[in-house]
Amino acid sequence: MQSLEIIPVKGINEVKKGDDLASLILSACRKNNLRIEDGDIFVVTHKIVSKAEGQVLRLSSIVPSKFSVRSGHHVGKDPRQVEVILSQSRRLVKMVKGLIISETPQGFVCANAGVDQSNVESGSIVLLPKRPDESARKLRASIKRALKKDVAVIISDTFGRPWREGQVDVAIGLSGIDPFVDYRGKKDQYGYSLKASVICIADEIASAAELCMNKLDRVPVAIVRGLEYRRADVPARMLVRKPARDLFR
Amino acid sequence: MQSLEIIPVKGINEVKKGDDLASLILSACRKNNLRIEDGDIFVVTHKIVSKAEGQVLRLSSIVPSKFSVRSGHHVGKDPRQVEVILSQSRRLVKMVKGLIISETPQGFVCANAGVDQSNVESGSIVLLPKRPDESARKLRASIKRALKKDVAVIISDTFGRPWREGQVDVAIGLSGIDPFVDYRGKKDQYGYSLKASVICIADEIASAAELCMNKLDRVPVAIVRGLEYRRADVPARMLVRKPARDLFR
Repeated sequence: MQSLEIIPVKGINEVKKGDDLASLILSACRKNNLRIEDGDIFVVTHKIVSKAEGQVLRLSSIVPSKFSVRSGHHVGKDPRQVEVILSQSRRLVKMVKGLIISETPQGFVCANAGVDQSNVESGSIVLLPKRPDESARKLRASIKRALKKDVAVIISDTFGRPWREGQVDVAIGLSGIDPFVDYRGKKDQYGYSLKASVICIADEIASAAELCMNKLDRVPVAIVRGLEYRRADVPARMLVRKPARDLFR
Repeated sequence: MQSLEIIPVKGINEVKKGDDLASLILSACRKNNLRIEDGDIFVVTHKIVSKAEGQVLRLSSIVPSKFSVRSGHHVGKDPRQVEVILSQSRRLVKMVKGLIISETPQGFVCANAGVDQSNVESGSIVLLPKRPDESARKLRASIKRALKKDVAVIISDTFGRPWREGQVDVAIGLSGIDPFVDYRGKKDQYGYSLKASVICIADEIASAAELCMNKLDRVPVAIVRGLEYRRADVPARMLVRKPARDLFR
C-alpha cells in the first residue's frame, strides 16, 4: 500500500450541450500542468456529463400533471419539479414533506430521482445522464485516444443514506475499474477466512474525490492517483442492491 | 482546493489490551519517516482501538441463551456469536439468513452490532469501542501532548448500506473535526441557494482512508493530509439519522 493522491482539476468552465467533455477536462489538466498517468482514476461529477449530453430542462417548459400539482403542494416542492422527478423515476420509495426518494430507470435509489437545480443556469433543472456507464466508457476511450493512457473513469453523484445523516458522493457510472474488492474466502493474518467483506471501492473513490471538489467553486473533476485496482468494465447498476438483497423491500 | 494525500501508516504490530495506541501509532510514523503536520487527520480502524481497550471476548467463555441458540440456527450463525451481538445491541432491525442488523447502544445501525472475528486471534470476537468519541479524543490529546501538533482523529468501521452493494468505511468516533460541511443557504456560481446539501465529510474521509488500508496486510491507520476542515468536537452519534428523520422507521 502506497500513498494516494487526490488532485482537483480546476479551470473547467461552463459546460454546454454538445461540448466534448474529454477535451475540456484534458485542456484543464494541461492548464494545471497535470500529467496524466496510466492507472489514474478520473472522478467526474455527473452534472457536467449531463450538461454536455443535453440532459437539462427549462422549468418553464414543464406542464405538471394533476398529481404533480397536488403532491407538489403536499411535499412542498414546485409541481414542475415533481413532474420532472416522476418522469425520471420508475418507482417511488418515499414521499414526505420536502423529500421524494425514488428509483430511477438506471436503478439508483436517491432523492429527487437525481434531478436538481444547483450549479446550472437559473430556471433550469439537470437530469442524470441517460446511460452513465456509456458516458464513462466514452470519456475513457477519448482520453486513451488523446494521450495513450489507460485510465479509469467514475461518474459521481451526491446521495443521501437511510441510516446516516449527511450525503456522500457515490459512483453512478463506471469504466475501466472493478468497483468491488472481494475479500470473501481470503485469509487474514490469523488464518481466519473472511466471510462478508466486499468493499465498494468505487463509492469510496467517489467519496474521496468529493473532498477535493466543492459545490460552490466549480471543481467538477478530481483525479485519484496511486491506487491499485483491477481493470474491468462492470456496470454501475451492480452497485445497486438487488431487490432480493435490498434490506427494506 | 488543493491536492489531498492519503498516507498509510504501516508497521503497527499486534495491539494488546492496555497498549498505548498513540505511542504505537507515532512510533510507526517515525519508522515510516512520516512527519506529522498540524491539520493531519488520523483515521484509525476501530479494531485496534477495541483491542487496546480490551473490547475482545473469547467465544469459549460465552454461554448462549435459548433465543441465541434458536435464532443462531435460524440465521446460520454460531449461537455464541448471536449472544454477543444481542449483548451489544439495543434494537434488532433485521434478522434473516446470514444477516443480523441491529442498532448498537452508541446508536449505529450495522451488521452484527459491529462485532466480528476477523483480524483477531482465532476463537476471539472484537466488539466496538464502548465510547468511540472518547477514544478519539484521548488519542488526539496524546498526539498533541507528544508532538505539539493539532490533528483530528476519526475512528472508522466498515458498514453495509441498505440500497447499495458492498461496504464502505464510515466514522464511528470523532475528535477535532466538524463531520459535516453544510452548504444550505450558500449560493452557487449561478446565485442559486443550495437547499439540501449537507456533506458528511467524516464518512468520506473514512472511506478515502480505507482505500489505503487493507484487511489482509495490517494497515490499521491512515493519515489524510491537505484537507481544510472546521475544528470542532461533534459526537459521532450526530452522524446517525435521528429516528424522526430515519427513512424507514
